[in-house]
Order: sequence, then structure tokens, then C-alpha cells
Amino acid sequence: MAVNFQSLAEEFTKFYYAQFDSDRSQLGNLYRDHSMLTFETSQMQGAKSIIEKLVSLPFQKVAHRISTLDAQPSSPDVGSVLVMVTGELLVDEEQNPQRYSQVFHLVPEGGSYYVFNDIFRLNYS
Amino acid sequence: MAVNFQSLAEEFTKFYYAQFDSDRSQLGNLYRDHSMLTFETSQMQGAKSIIEKLVSLPFQKVAHRISTLDAQPSSPDVGSVLVMVTGELLVDEEQNPQRYSQVFHLVPEGGSYYVFNDIFRLNYS
Repeated sequence: MAVNFQSLAEEFTKFYYAQFDSDRSQLGNLYRDHSMLTFETSQMQGAKSIIEKLVSLPFQKVAHRISTLDAQPSSPDVGSVLVMVTGELLVDEEQNPQRYSQVFHLVPEGGSYYVFNDIFRLNYS
Repeated sequence: MAVNFQSLAEEFTKFYYAQFDSDRSQLGNLYRDHSMLTFETSQMQGAKSIIEKLVSLPFQKVAHRISTLDAQPSSPDVGSVLVMVTGELLVDEEQNPQRYSQVFHLVPEGGSYYVFNDIFRLNYS
């Protein structure tokens, strides 16, 4: 299966962060029961636990800005895609953005993709 | 297959960076012909091309220091592992470390693991 994985990664992250920044409670349909999220030092499995975690994060307003986005096919045959993002995050009334790194592992399912792995870390300097 | 993926990720990265920092020309046996490296804006496929790229990097001395390391199984059945590292890199006589993010996708083969995906980015502030 030939996938334009770079375009797919760009479309996915654009959609993901737009949805995250407007209403992150609606991200649940991007995860499955076996999906995993590592958010800083917390680990969750399953769409329900992942969304509970994301909704519980202690900010109201949030804006992601992507600095770099790289993608590679993560399997010789399945069509899955690995995405690494580095970027900046602006929360609430903060003036100084926080840098972050995030990895998504996207797996195809019925003509679309879901998030199998999601690892997020702030980059402290 | 039950894999202690966190320990595996720690052992792998410890070995990888120790080898990288002492003699990166010897990393070739960790990659295969279908392995991929994204190093900043360059993309390479295959152990030979990947090692040529790593050897050509314009520094003699290099030291990696890991700040965070997170791992997740990347497949429900195959035993493959996704690793995200954030850390600092000190090259040659530089006094100021550069921050970086790196993802490794490790795939089992004959009792060991090889690197299927490798994505490296410096984090500019």
C-alpha cells in the first residue's frame, strides 16, 4: 500500500492540534481501547482514560505551534506511519511558549487512521 | 510476547549512545536495508546510507545526555517498541549543549532488535 506518509502526517497533526486547541474532549474517536498515551510521567491506555487525562490538564486555553514535523512509514507492509513533532505550546494567559516533543504512531483502519501510540514531553531547558 | 519495553528501551539507548559517542561508524549492525533515518532535513534508507550520513556529521567528539526516555509497545503482537528520547548533545569543544529529540522504532529479530525508524531533530529555541 503506497501511502504519502508526509502529507498524511501533516493533515493528521493539523486536524489533531486544531481539535485539541478548540475542544480536546472530542479527540476520543482518534484512539482505540489498546491505544497508549504517555503524557510527561503519566501513562494511560484506552480512549476513555486518554481523554480523561487530556481533559484534566490544568489549562483552559491552549495553542500548539509546530516547529518541525517528520514522518516515516513504520512498517514494510501495513501502511502505518510514525510522526515526530517538535513545537511550542502557549497556555492560558502565558506570554512565553513552552517547547515540546510529541510522537504519534498512526495505524490504518477502514480507510482512515487511529493513534496507536502517543508520547508527549515538554522540553525543559 | 511479553517484553519489558521500558528496560529494553533504556538498555538500547544506553548502548546506542555509548557506541555513537565512541565510534559511530560501528552502528551499522543496528540498521537493516529497509531502515530509515531522518536527521534534521535529510532522509536516508538502508544501513550503508545511514552510517555514511552519521560518519559525515561535522564533529569529532560528541556526547549525548538523556533528559527523558519514554517507551511503548508499538504493536499488539509483534513485540516492537517505540522510544522517544529528549536530551542534550555536546560536540567538540562547545561549552553549551544543544537540545535534541529522537525517536527509535525497534523491531525484534532473532532474539535481538534492530532500528526500523530513527528520527532526529535538534530543538532550536
